[in-house]
Amino acid sequence: MSAARPEQKSQDLREAMFAIGRAARVVARALALAPTATKNAALRAMAAHLRQDSAVILKANAADAEAAQAAGLAASFIDRLRLTDERIEAMARGLEDIAELPDPVGAVLSEWTRPNGLNIARVRVPIGVIGIIYESRPNVTADAGGLCLKSGNAAILRTGSDAFRSASAIHACLVAGLKAAGLPEDSIQLIPTTDRAAVGHLLSGLDGAVDVIVPRGGRSLVERVQSDARVPVFAHLEGICHTYVDKAADPVMAKDIVVNAKMRRTGVCGATECLLVDRAAPSELLAGLVTALLDAGCEVRGDEAARAVDARVKPAATNDFGKEFLDSIIALKTVEGVDGAIDHITRLGSQHTDAIITSDAATANQFLTQVDSAIVLHNASTQFADGGEFGFGAEIGIATGKLHARGPVGVEQLTSFKYVVRGSGQIRPG
Amino acid sequence: MSAARPEQKSQDLREAMFAIGRAARVVARALALAPTATKNAALRAMAAHLRQDSAVILKANAADAEAAQAAGLAASFIDRLRLTDERIEAMARGLEDIAELPDPVGAVLSEWTRPNGLNIARVRVPIGVIGIIYESRPNVTADAGGLCLKSGNAAILRTGSDAFRSASAIHACLVAGLKAAGLPEDSIQLIPTTDRAAVGHLLSGLDGAVDVIVPRGGRSLVERVQSDARVPVFAHLEGICHTYVDKAADPVMAKDIVVNAKMRRTGVCGATECLLVDRAAPSELLAGLVTALLDAGCEVRGDEAARAVDARVKPAATNDFGKEFLDSIIALKTVEGVDGAIDHITRLGSQHTDAIITSDAATANQFLTQVDSAIVLHNASTQFADGGEFGFGAEIGIATGKLHARGPVGVEQLTSFKYVVRGSGQIRPG
Repeated sequence: MSAARPEQKSQDLREAMFAIGRAARVVARALALAPTATKNAALRAMAAHLRQDSAVILKANAADAEAAQAAGLAASFIDRLRLTDERIEAMARGLEDIAELPDPVGAVLSEWTRPNGLNIARVRVPIGVIGIIYESRPNVTADAGGLCLKSGNAAILRTGSDAFRSASAIHACLVAGLKAAGLPEDSIQLIPTTDRAAVGHLLSGLDGAVDVIVPRGGRSLVERVQSDARVPVFAHLEGICHTYVDKAADPVMAKDIVVNAKMRRTGVCGATECLLVDRAAPSELLAGLVTALLDAGCEVRGDEAARAVDARVKPAATNDFGKEFLDSIIALKTVEGVDGAIDHITRLGSQHTDAIITSDAATANQFLTQVDSAIVLHNASTQFADGGEFGFGAEIGIATGKLHARGPVGVEQLTSFKYVVRGSGQIRPG
Repeated sequence: MSAARPEQKSQDLREAMFAIGRAARVVARALALAPTATKNAALRAMAAHLRQDSAVILKANAADAEAAQAAGLAASFIDRLRLTDERIEAMARGLEDIAELPDPVGAVLSEWTRPNGLNIARVRVPIGVIGIIYESRPNVTADAGGLCLKSGNAAILRTGSDAFRSASAIHACLVAGLKAAGLPEDSIQLIPTTDRAAVGHLLSGLDGAVDVIVPRGGRSLVERVQSDARVPVFAHLEGICHTYVDKAADPVMAKDIVVNAKMRRTGVCGATECLLVDRAAPSELLAGLVTALLDAGCEVRGDEAARAVDARVKPAATNDFGKEFLDSIIALKTVEGVDGAIDHITRLGSQHTDAIITSDAATANQFLTQVDSAIVLHNASTQFADGGEFGFGAEIGIATGKLHARGPVGVEQLTSFKYVVRGSGQIRPG
C-alpha cells in the first residue's frame, strides 16, 4: 500500500478539523436550549458508563503508560498519565458533582425597568464552542467535557498524544452518556488524531467556529496557545504567588499560613513562591517564619536579612524572585513595609494570587486595593485559590487575564449573557 | 535639509508608539486608585476647557474641513467632521453627564462567606489600558476619553487623519482638565501623528501594554481591527437587526414599532434592516405594514407575498437579506411563523438586536430564548439598542462578541473585577 502524499494528508486533516468545528457550531445551538434535567441526566449517565467500562479504560491506559515508559518519559509524567480504579471513581464523582451544581444558563443576573416601562433583564447564555487543549492527565477529558456540557457549550477536546488511548476510552463513555440522555453525540468531540497540526487548526478558531480556547497544562503549552491562538484564551501562564507578612502580623498566624501557603501542595498554581517580610517586623517574626519553613522541609533562598537569622538559608539569586518553583523552595525578601511589598508584587508577580498577613486593617486594605491580582487575600493561605474553595464547584482552570473570566473558571465563567427587553409597544422618540 | 531615511522614520515611530504604551501602563496604576471626586473634577474641568477654548477648536476644525473639501471628500463625511458651537456644547455636557454616573470602580458585585469563615467579595477594578481607533467624528475624542477616565482606565486615542487638527484641539482641553484635577496628563493620550503605520503598532498591543481595542467607525475600520488586532476587541461589525411581526401581533402596535425601528434614524446600528412577517398573519396586517413604511418614505424590497399587497414594493434580491442598508430601505420577507423567523435570523443576522411583535407570550418567549443576539426585544423598537436607553449612561459602542462586554459598552463594561478574600488565619487542609 502506498502512503498518502503529505499534502493530501494535510488537506484531509484540515477538512476533518473544519468538519469538527461545523458540527460543534450546529450542536451548540441545541445545547444552549437543552433543559437542565437533560444535561444532568447525561452527566450521571456518563459517570455510570465510566464505572461500568473501567476495565476498558484501564486497559487503554495501560497501553498509553507502556508506550510512555518505552519512550523513556519521566516517572512524574507517567504518574500523571496513570489511571487507577480510584482515579476513575473520582472522575465519575466529579461528573455527578457537576450535575449537582445549579444550571447557570437562563439565570437572571440583573433586571430593571426603565422610566418608559421597558423591562430589561440580563440573562446568562452559553458562550458557544469551547476548545480545550490539555496534556497527559486523562481526567481532564471528563472534567472539561462535563463543565462545558453543564454550561450549555459544545466542547472540542484535544488530548496530549501520550494519553490518546486513555482519553478515547473516557470519551466513549461521555458519548454514551450523551446518547442515553438524548443529546447530540457531537456535544463533546475528541479530536480523533494525534497529528500535531490539528492543534494549529484548533488555535485558528476553525473559521469562527471556536469561541474560546482553554489550555490545561504546563507553561510551554500555555505559552504556545497564548501566542498562536486567534481566538480568546482563558488561562494563566504562571502562579507566582506572594505572601507578605507585615510588622503588625500575629506571629503564630503568620507561621501557620506561610507554611501552609508554601508546603500544603507545592505543585499547584496557588502555592506561595515568594515570602515578603516587613523590614520593620521584630526579628523573632522573621526568624520564626524561616525556622518553620526549614523545619517543614522547605529550601529557603533569602536575602541578607534572612540569612542573618539562620545559616541554613541559601543566598537568593536575582532570578529566584518572580520564579515559579512548583517545588519545596521559597524565595524570601525583606521589604519596606506594605509599599515595598506592593511594589515587589507589581514588578515580579503574575497577577494570580497574593496574600497579606497583618492585624492592621488599614494596611490590609491598602494591599487588597493596590495589588492588581485576580485574587488577593487577607490573613489566609494562597492555597485557597481554587474554584472549589470559592464555592464555584469544579473549575476548568484559573484565569489571570482581565477580560471575561478572571480567577477560577467554573460553569458560570463559561457563560455569556444577553439582554432580554420586554415592552408594551414602546417606540423611541427623537 | 535631507529627509530622514524611511527605515529610520519607521524605527522612530515604533519607539514613539511603545513609549506611549509604557506611559499608559504606568498611569493606569495611578488611575485605578484615583478617587471618584478627582476623576469627576477632571471631567468637569475638561468640559469647562472645551467651552472656554471653543474658538480654538472651531478654527482647527475649519482647517480640517477645508482640507477635506479640497481633497474632494463626500459631503456626508464633511458633515460628520464639522463642529459647531452646539456640537462643542454637546461634548461638554457629555463629559458632565459622565461625571454624574456612579463610579464603577470599587463596586462590590457580589459577596459571600464560606463555611470556613472566608469572606469573598467580587470587586470591580479597571481593565487597564484601552485603545480607541476612530474615524472623522471629533466628538469621539471627548466621549471615549471621558468614559475611559471614569472607569479608571488609561486611554490611547487614534483619530482618523482627516480630523487630526480637531481631535488635537479637543485633546488639549482634556489634558488641561486632567492637570486641573491633579491627574497625570498621560491618562488620555492622543497618538500625535497621522502616520497610518501607528495603527498597526496599536493593534499589536504595544508589547502587552494595551488590554483591549475599541474601534469606532464603519465596517472597513472594524474589519481591519478585528482581523489584525492581537489583543481583544469590543466591537460590532454590522447591525443587521430584524423585526418579526407574528400573526398574533396587535396591528397598530406593529405598524408603529416597525416604522420607528426602521425610520427614526436609518444610520444607527440599531435600525431594523429586515422585516419578517408571519405567513399566517391576516393579509391586512402585512398590507398595513407595507403601506406605513412606503408612506414614511421607505423603499421596501420584498418577496412575492409583499409585492402582492402593494405594487410599489420592489423585488428583493437574495443579498438584500442579511444586508445593513443604513438607509431608508428595508428588506421584507414572509416566514413560517416564529420558527421561520428564528431560522432566518440565525442564518442572516449579526447577533446585534432583534425584536418580535406579538401578543402571544409563549411565542415571545421562544423568540427571546432562541434568538442568539446581544439584545432581543418583545413589543419594542430595535432603536432602543443604546447604552443611554438601557440606563448605562454614555456608551463607547455596542459589542456583538460574547466574551466580556456584550451589548452597549458603558463605564461598567470597561471594567474587570478581582476577588478580595478576607480571613482570620485560615489555612487549607488536605
